[in-house]
Amino acid sequence: MTDFTGVNPADRGSNDADATEYERDSAYRVDPWTLSRTGLDLHTLAASESLYSLANGHIGLRGSLEEGEPRAVPGTYVNGFFEERPLPHAESGYGFPESGETAVNVTDGKIIRLFVGDSPFDMRYGSIEHHERALDLRAGTLDRHTEWTSPSGTPVRVTSRRLVSFAQRSLAAICYDVEPLDGDAYVALQSDLLANESGSTPSSDPRDAAHLDRPLRAEFAAARDSRAVLVHRTRRSKLRVAAGMTHLLEVPDEVETTIEAAGDLARYTVTAKVPRGSRLRLIKLVAYGWSHRRSAPALRDQVEAALSVARLTGWDGLIEQQRNFLDEFWSRADVEIDGDPALQQAVRVSMFHILQSAARAEGQAISAKGLSGVGYDGHTFWDAEVFALPMLTYTMPAAARDHLVWRHATLGEARARAKELGLRGAAFPWRTISGKENSGYWPAGTAAFHVNSAVAAATARYLAVTGDEDFETVAGVELLTETARLWASIGHFNDTEFHIDGVTGPDEYTAIVDDNLYTNVMAAQNLTDAADACERRPEVAATLGVDADEIALWRRAAAGVAMPYNDDLGVHEQSLGFTRHAEWDFAATKKKFYPLLLHYPYFQLYRRQVIKQADLTLAMHLRGDLFTPEQKERNFAYYEARTVRDSSLSAATQAVLAAETGHLELAYDYWAEVAFVDLGDLHGNVDDGLHIAAMGGSWMVAVAGFGGMRDHGGRVTFAPRLPRALQRIAFQLTYGGNVLRVSIRRDGDTGAEEATYEVEAGPGLRTWHHGEPVDVRPDQPVTLPVPVASDVEPVQQPARRAPKRRHSNGR
Amino acid sequence: MTDFTGVNPADRGSNDADATEYERDSAYRVDPWTLSRTGLDLHTLAASESLYSLANGHIGLRGSLEEGEPRAVPGTYVNGFFEERPLPHAESGYGFPESGETAVNVTDGKIIRLFVGDSPFDMRYGSIEHHERALDLRAGTLDRHTEWTSPSGTPVRVTSRRLVSFAQRSLAAICYDVEPLDGDAYVALQSDLLANESGSTPSSDPRDAAHLDRPLRAEFAAARDSRAVLVHRTRRSKLRVAAGMTHLLEVPDEVETTIEAAGDLARYTVTAKVPRGSRLRLIKLVAYGWSHRRSAPALRDQVEAALSVARLTGWDGLIEQQRNFLDEFWSRADVEIDGDPALQQAVRVSMFHILQSAARAEGQAISAKGLSGVGYDGHTFWDAEVFALPMLTYTMPAAARDHLVWRHATLGEARARAKELGLRGAAFPWRTISGKENSGYWPAGTAAFHVNSAVAAATARYLAVTGDEDFETVAGVELLTETARLWASIGHFNDTEFHIDGVTGPDEYTAIVDDNLYTNVMAAQNLTDAADACERRPEVAATLGVDADEIALWRRAAAGVAMPYNDDLGVHEQSLGFTRHAEWDFAATKKKFYPLLLHYPYFQLYRRQVIKQADLTLAMHLRGDLFTPEQKERNFAYYEARTVRDSSLSAATQAVLAAETGHLELAYDYWAEVAFVDLGDLHGNVDDGLHIAAMGGSWMVAVAGFGGMRDHGGRVTFAPRLPRALQRIAFQLTYGGNVLRVSIRRDGDTGAEEATYEVEAGPGLRTWHHGEPVDVRPDQPVTLPVPVASDVEPVQQPARRAPKRRHSNGR
Repeated sequence: MTDFTGVNPADRGSNDADATEYERDSAYRVDPWTLSRTGLDLHTLAASESLYSLANGHIGLRGSLEEGEPRAVPGTYVNGFFEERPLPHAESGYGFPESGETAVNVTDGKIIRLFVGDSPFDMRYGSIEHHERALDLRAGTLDRHTEWTSPSGTPVRVTSRRLVSFAQRSLAAICYDVEPLDGDAYVALQSDLLANESGSTPSSDPRDAAHLDRPLRAEFAAARDSRAVLVHRTRRSKLRVAAGMTHLLEVPDEVETTIEAAGDLARYTVTAKVPRGSRLRLIKLVAYGWSHRRSAPALRDQVEAALSVARLTGWDGLIEQQRNFLDEFWSRADVEIDGDPALQQAVRVSMFHILQSAARAEGQAISAKGLSGVGYDGHTFWDAEVFALPMLTYTMPAAARDHLVWRHATLGEARARAKELGLRGAAFPWRTISGKENSGYWPAGTAAFHVNSAVAAATARYLAVTGDEDFETVAGVELLTETARLWASIGHFNDTEFHIDGVTGPDEYTAIVDDNLYTNVMAAQNLTDAADACERRPEVAATLGVDADEIALWRRAAAGVAMPYNDDLGVHEQSLGFTRHAEWDFAATKKKFYPLLLHYPYFQLYRRQVIKQADLTLAMHLRGDLFTPEQKERNFAYYEARTVRDSSLSAATQAVLAAETGHLELAYDYWAEVAFVDLGDLHGNVDDGLHIAAMGGSWMVAVAGFGGMRDHGGRVTFAPRLPRALQRIAFQLTYGGNVLRVSIRRDGDTGAEEATYEVEAGPGLRTWHHGEPVDVRPDQPVTLPVPVASDVEPVQQPARRAPKRRHSNGR
Repeated sequence: MTDFTGVNPADRGSNDADATEYERDSAYRVDPWTLSRTGLDLHTLAASESLYSLANGHIGLRGSLEEGEPRAVPGTYVNGFFEERPLPHAESGYGFPESGETAVNVTDGKIIRLFVGDSPFDMRYGSIEHHERALDLRAGTLDRHTEWTSPSGTPVRVTSRRLVSFAQRSLAAICYDVEPLDGDAYVALQSDLLANESGSTPSSDPRDAAHLDRPLRAEFAAARDSRAVLVHRTRRSKLRVAAGMTHLLEVPDEVETTIEAAGDLARYTVTAKVPRGSRLRLIKLVAYGWSHRRSAPALRDQVEAALSVARLTGWDGLIEQQRNFLDEFWSRADVEIDGDPALQQAVRVSMFHILQSAARAEGQAISAKGLSGVGYDGHTFWDAEVFALPMLTYTMPAAARDHLVWRHATLGEARARAKELGLRGAAFPWRTISGKENSGYWPAGTAAFHVNSAVAAATARYLAVTGDEDFETVAGVELLTETARLWASIGHFNDTEFHIDGVTGPDEYTAIVDDNLYTNVMAAQNLTDAADACERRPEVAATLGVDADEIALWRRAAAGVAMPYNDDLGVHEQSLGFTRHAEWDFAATKKKFYPLLLHYPYFQLYRRQVIKQADLTLAMHLRGDLFTPEQKERNFAYYEARTVRDSSLSAATQAVLAAETGHLELAYDYWAEVAFVDLGDLHGNVDDGLHIAAMGGSWMVAVAGFGGMRDHGGRVTFAPRLPRALQRIAFQLTYGGNVLRVSIRRDGDTGAEEATYEVEAGPGLRTWHHGEPVDVRPDQPVTLPVPVASDVEPVQQPARRAPKRRHSNGR
């Protein structure tokens, strides 16, 4: 278990006197491999539940305390499980979805209520001598250590360790110890499965609350020995979920146990006398299964089987499996940062949570909040592909494939949606759980067709990185083809120029525009990737009805795609006419008016040059091959001055382009901002769950920002540079059958930078270092100097919207 | 009373063998001054209730039968009276209204239930020997004549005449006669006031239904003699309405009467023996009052006083007042058409209903459906000013002023809305009853800022026509100033060019565009009118804080306003970039896919060159001074080919521009289409109420289309021409202290056309005939030849969207 040092929060500052604001305001201790804090703060309880959530891509448990209260949002989620609710429209329109999906809090198996003597264990009463929790990124456990004296004066130590197993997909487990600290104690434990927990689906809309307050209808309950199962079904979506629990008990003295199950509650009760110096240990194994097809008995059997396997594995076995899985992950995925311990920690926490959101999803999606909360209703958006999948593709490609398999499984819905919209191919939804469109505001939903190019780009990247021919045959060519068909039917030619009108790009402060440059160039890539895939796999293409004419049309559209450009200003336009719009009066916009969308109507935002999040800048990252270095510099400066970052999806991309255009310190500032989005609760809503895409961005800044990695056309290139504060960044990428380790160092004396490329596994590869080809053979690391960067003109952000300057120990 | 000829519907066709489709499909008899039909058709009952509605701008009664059933929508409305309901949003946004207003069916005073012997009088049972109803456009009454035999075999004649008094604003009255046709009959009459009638607010949304099913809470009830009063209050909007009734009875024999009132029902019961050859006459007087301030006793007293005045006036007096009012109206307003009797009738019906929607509004608005139904929730839109007010301004200016007084009274709301949107001045709502924004879809609501220029243009027109200095001082300058300020804050300068970005013009198949030409040129007029008014009335301007700098800014913006133009095509652009959008595939669009908005998503409509309703064409009408004749011709042809007329607000404007550009037969086709919108139920929704704006369009085609009347800058000019089918069109306009009669005739032999200008009252005036000045003195009519029109290239509409060809008797 984690070694608890028992440091009081007030003492914490002494260890990191030079830490910058993000971590200085944080209650979490800076540590390379754990995220720990002491004390109980009710104000940040919801945020800590999110940050301490455990998941494996299939099951997610928020970090609520075992005793159930105090709590904020006691969520337990199984990926893909949702309830339907009406989507009301003040004025409806053709194609507006009429019902929506919301992830629901399923049967809670985390609860172990404790009574000491005659007092319930509730830290809001009595006195807390010590309380600490720690998320261990290598062990994959959430550890708790509490010393508490009951209101009647009985001191007790409660320790617990909790995991959601990466090895056993259906399983969560809790090891719960109680030790009396002063004399013998009578102790009662109630270990529950509890469905329809109150307060689990907060909503400001009374209509929603009515539908979602008790979404589960009890279908089945059974209990015997220490084992119980509950099966429930949602009222509207008709999905069935089974939760089962079993227990292992270590008791020093007399004990009585009972088991019961009915309706929404199953309970295993342990009553014991625990002598001083001994402890009561309860190991609780919890299993989940859900289905829209399988019967209640079948689901019951499924969770009982999972529990039996887990009992056989035993607690120590589960712990060992968990560590082995994570050792393997970190050995291929770790990002090392020398010179900024807090940032090092934040990046690892981010990578850990992305892993948790995806590792065992197997046919389900990576949602915006992972399995850490029901913000955005638990929906998946385009950012899964653009911001979360790159890390997974290059470190754990099977998890990336899981997500794309889910997209492929929803092709039927996407084709039906395209048809409903009068389009060809597939139109993937802006937001969804099941694959159905859930967007209630079409100018920033349906019109944001770029979600389709995101799916296609992630598919093409996955194929390029893995060469997975099975996936290509079964899903890859089809995903690329159907999205390409969508673009071919959305766009139109004026002579040879291909235009896409009336769409919304990534920047949600601009909507329904012509020739959004990001959309256009990503569509062009999609069309090219589809043409390439169909030519590579003609037998698959034939089954999809693709002929040479269709491929030729795709190539013609890709070649002719419009890239609006303002000759007077010498910059590309985010969309046609964007640069002649009125400017936003940033000087007059007070800090309290951000995020702007809460204080200004869309009308005001859309008609002005104010940008919520990287849009053309993202195009310069993902389609950097289409811009000259000079264009990138000018464009970056122009759009930087108009981007307010009212979205967590912006800073990472700005960091990547800042690094590419030589603004390394700015890139470093943005890196810290994106890495601390959740640890610092920078958007004030980590209560509702983590920002998985921003977490992906933390990795992206290391690799694509300071590593300068690009993978245009499947060719992986690097252009590494360090910010002044850091001595070293190292990362690893798995692709083309190799594991490549890239390490960028600065010489402490000369200040010169060099990069080492090392193939840790695989046959070797060719890459490029600052434009020069490099052949890297196994066991023959190549070290190359980093060219000295030329000076650049500083760029400006809107007033009051510059990122905080990052000062680290190493500076 | 109307002379009922008793013609069977089946015989009707013989009188008008050459009638075209619109009236051939109609059950209404062609007649110059009445709208009558025979028989009872349950399928068109709702439509007939709308067409037979009676109103005076304050009270509106749908034309439901006195006996209550059968009925479709038994509406009784008092102008401005509404209930609030929540406006739900699937995804809310800043500035989205959270509650909406719906006109409610108030206490129904139309009901007089009849029992003959032991049978209720219900025409769905027994047998109908004859049934006819007629709306008399000169008498202002709805007349009914029914001969019916009860299921038990008792024949009876029921005749009624109903009016909503133009002279006594709070009053409606019904004269109801019962005559037994075969032997003595025992007759019972129940004359009701009934609140919270069921089935009165149809809604597909169960949430609405719940709120609006019983919107009225009973506050007070009283009855004595033949008089009763009910006072109710709405649950959310807290508006109070009082309804009162009193009765005059003429009975030939024994009679018993009772009166009662409680809760939602007041009832006067008459039981009488009516000998053969005699009749029972019940005259029912009904009065209404509503207020958001006045107490229940005050409202009660108000309606009782109104009833007393009406009793004193007596039935014959009410009838006489009504005819006097209408004689006066028609003497100043009538439009005469020789050569197309059905069109003549349709135009008069249209004018009558506009008059009914406005005559005694006095501080309330003209809504889209008048007081004939609750389509569009009873809301008022921009079309009141653009399509309904012109007729009133030139024929009954006091009614036009009433509407503008209402707009002025809502300036507080409009200023608050502008502020909420981050704008200056006033932002009038897209749709409203009280003055608060009710629009639930902002791209076609809030973004349609042109409603503000509509208010301003109507204000400027009213001032130019009447020279009403009181109104100018109290309201006119302020309305012009506050709307001008809105434009100044919405638009922005690029050098000297003034641009208005991100707005929606009249065409609802295009939204959120830059430089919508209609919006721009109407805003420019608004700015100019405001500058002129402030310079004309500097003392008023000073109280509004207008200084010379602000006026200079307005003039600079007006002078610099952008008018997008495509040089390659030689046409103006509806909005920037419109003409480079993809074309709609009209050839592939089947008839059943219209209206397009019910079959295609906004996304598909917005990004293509498909136009719901006249937009740039309307700009060429209202700002014709900004276009050359050649530009009008080319623009008209270009936009005509892309306009599908999925709105009733389009055909009239297309007729006006067709006439101006020499397409006289096309203009005639459009005239018929707009005139028969309701009589022919061309949009399939006359059940919900009449299309008041289209009715205004019927007048507009006569005056601005074939009369060629324009009033740019307050200068009234004419360019008359006739379509081949007509021998004569004559109309009258009241302006500048004159009543001008314009008559356009074709010589039957030579085919030559001439126009006569005659001042019927007033000091005389200067006008223009086809560009040449004409001075017209009292009693000195001026007759001038109409220049021979040059041939023009035919224009094309989208496939399957050409108007029906109009063939009339005179052709």
